[in-house]
Amino acid sequence: MSRTIVIAQGGGPTAVINQTMAGAVVEARRRDPGVRILGALHGVRGVRDGKFVDLGALPDDQLMRFANTPSAALGSTRDKPDAAYCEQVLGGLKKVDASAFIYIGGNDTAGTQAILSDTSAGTIACVHAPKTIDNDLMESDHTPGFISAGEFVASAFLSVDLDFRALPGIYVGIVMGRHAGFLTAAASAWRLDEDGGPHLTYVPERAFDRARFVDDIRNVMARHGRCIVAMSEGVSGADGRSLVENLVPADMLERDAHGNVRLSGTDLGQAIERILAEDLAGTRSRVDTLGYLPRGAISMISETDQREAFNAGRFSIEVADSGSGSVALQYFGGETKPALVPLEQVAGKTRHMPADFLETDENRISSEGMEYLERLLPRRFEPGKPFV
Amino acid sequence: MSRTIVIAQGGGPTAVINQTMAGAVVEARRRDPGVRILGALHGVRGVRDGKFVDLGALPDDQLMRFANTPSAALGSTRDKPDAAYCEQVLGGLKKVDASAFIYIGGNDTAGTQAILSDTSAGTIACVHAPKTIDNDLMESDHTPGFISAGEFVASAFLSVDLDFRALPGIYVGIVMGRHAGFLTAAASAWRLDEDGGPHLTYVPERAFDRARFVDDIRNVMARHGRCIVAMSEGVSGADGRSLVENLVPADMLERDAHGNVRLSGTDLGQAIERILAEDLAGTRSRVDTLGYLPRGAISMISETDQREAFNAGRFSIEVADSGSGSVALQYFGGETKPALVPLEQVAGKTRHMPADFLETDENRISSEGMEYLERLLPRRFEPGKPFV
Repeated sequence: MSRTIVIAQGGGPTAVINQTMAGAVVEARRRDPGVRILGALHGVRGVRDGKFVDLGALPDDQLMRFANTPSAALGSTRDKPDAAYCEQVLGGLKKVDASAFIYIGGNDTAGTQAILSDTSAGTIACVHAPKTIDNDLMESDHTPGFISAGEFVASAFLSVDLDFRALPGIYVGIVMGRHAGFLTAAASAWRLDEDGGPHLTYVPERAFDRARFVDDIRNVMARHGRCIVAMSEGVSGADGRSLVENLVPADMLERDAHGNVRLSGTDLGQAIERILAEDLAGTRSRVDTLGYLPRGAISMISETDQREAFNAGRFSIEVADSGSGSVALQYFGGETKPALVPLEQVAGKTRHMPADFLETDENRISSEGMEYLERLLPRRFEPGKPFV
Repeated sequence: MSRTIVIAQGGGPTAVINQTMAGAVVEARRRDPGVRILGALHGVRGVRDGKFVDLGALPDDQLMRFANTPSAALGSTRDKPDAAYCEQVLGGLKKVDASAFIYIGGNDTAGTQAILSDTSAGTIACVHAPKTIDNDLMESDHTPGFISAGEFVASAFLSVDLDFRALPGIYVGIVMGRHAGFLTAAASAWRLDEDGGPHLTYVPERAFDRARFVDDIRNVMARHGRCIVAMSEGVSGADGRSLVENLVPADMLERDAHGNVRLSGTDLGQAIERILAEDLAGTRSRVDTLGYLPRGAISMISETDQREAFNAGRFSIEVADSGSGSVALQYFGGETKPALVPLEQVAGKTRHMPADFLETDENRISSEGMEYLERLLPRRFEPGKPFV
């Protein structure tokens, strides 16, 4: 009898998470034409509840159409299973006689695989295939999903910067990112020139200080006549509490099942709008929450990202023969390649944006930051420089 | 001596307003190689203050690079000149010996041209060339700038709909549009299938009722398991006051010089978020303000839009020989063509979205609405249909 492989997708959708699913299916079929490949619906929840679709039976053209479609085609979940839940998931895997479980997701997904790998004691290969727009997986140079989301953000801020040259003022765009600032930093990747925005970048890695924020904006307004700001939803004060928690009354905060404050709301935007109205009154200012737009934008899917995500999926099948682990995209000698790393080095951990990606005197992206961004997000547009 | 033509740009930038500028320059040079073409910086303000750049001297390649760049390259203005201001503008035009003034913008810009045309008593041809993402100019089938912005919005909502299939809940995306709902309606143009979102559309043309809104969402959740909502920033209650005014305390409202309440803030998003938390508690919900992203997105510039905007610019020069007027894109026999209409038929007026673009039983886009949207915004993406 041929073996059975189960594939699932966890956490926030991305533009290329289906490429990884497709890569895994293609490689599994190549190695064993009779393989049974089950896709679990809504991540571990589908494994636990026995909700599967037959991915192995998908014709190639349909598979590639899925691959080119953003968002998790199998559905996703925010469940972070504990030991008891993992027992049930393991039961689900055993019921379908799975020899390998490929779970595509971020550091929480790696965490689930770490527990499952321990619980199954080597009977099932539990492989974590990487995916996150946050770009915050340990052992990775970058993550599948980041490049496409980053290009969306870079394009959005280049466009808004052009807009605000025509009608000057202050613009703050709030970008997803609870703990890591990479995606917010990506806003600077396609800056038009020395005068170009975003001029300021606020990320979770550097403590936010209201007085300094206002000073920074005043200085930029004096230099450029407008000020474009990229800000992570997860910016935090010196006390480590998120700005949302610091600025919004406690009874207005929404928390998830894990007690985490919901950051993807309008609270931060509203709080920033108030700061601008109070401390920079008289200057036109606008705050937008980019929210869900960057993470799976069908109009901005990077071919590099697609290829790397597909290869990560193929590689996850290749390594499943030798047991559990986490797939990481690593960069050596000018090339990005998948590598296998131990699950515990990735599980539940956050890779932060290096401190030197920001200048110290002002919250501008440094040359170190630009070097990294320009390597991953080569400029795709060469606009004319406006007269104003 | 050759004649002098002055060109300026007014109101909110778009993806193709520079195409119209380029079209005017190309046509003016074609008709008279010795023509002097001045670009006024920041609209009528630049005319008044004598701030001009020499557009006629721009080499073709540089001109076309501008044409392909979103946002007003000459800078824009929100000034709505009164009679006294218009006298000064006229003085500015006379000082440079202008025989024609091409002002690219929306209905306020047409309003300025109507005053200038009267004041100059036929000595200067005052031509309004159309531009607005709002698609709300009288006498027009559609307006330059709308198609590109509409494609951005259609793409965003298709992407978010895919996202929310993977992780279900309620999503409300707030789209620019103070008086006209066309751009918000564009969110439905690329709906994936009968199950696809946006499922509900709220526009300024139909009175918003909180109880009905909540009911609509409940019904959609029951039918589709998720609910994607497209909402105009200018939605208003039955009393005609904008939702922002109705829901936000008066002392928190920001007004512009004309007394208009600022709608492009986070207030509406916050108010909607609160309605969802109060009346649909327990269901995951997210509200994003798309804000400035759709109107000049460098990644989503429609070639049709570019061509039509360019042609509108050429046509504005062609008709300037015969006096003042407004250029309107009209649709006959399967073709979009520019036509000249009297300024007073456009000046300060708003073309509203036809009432039959929305179903009456629920706020869904009707087949009449879809027919219009599909003609202007043909589908550009064919994603795979997710398993969930």
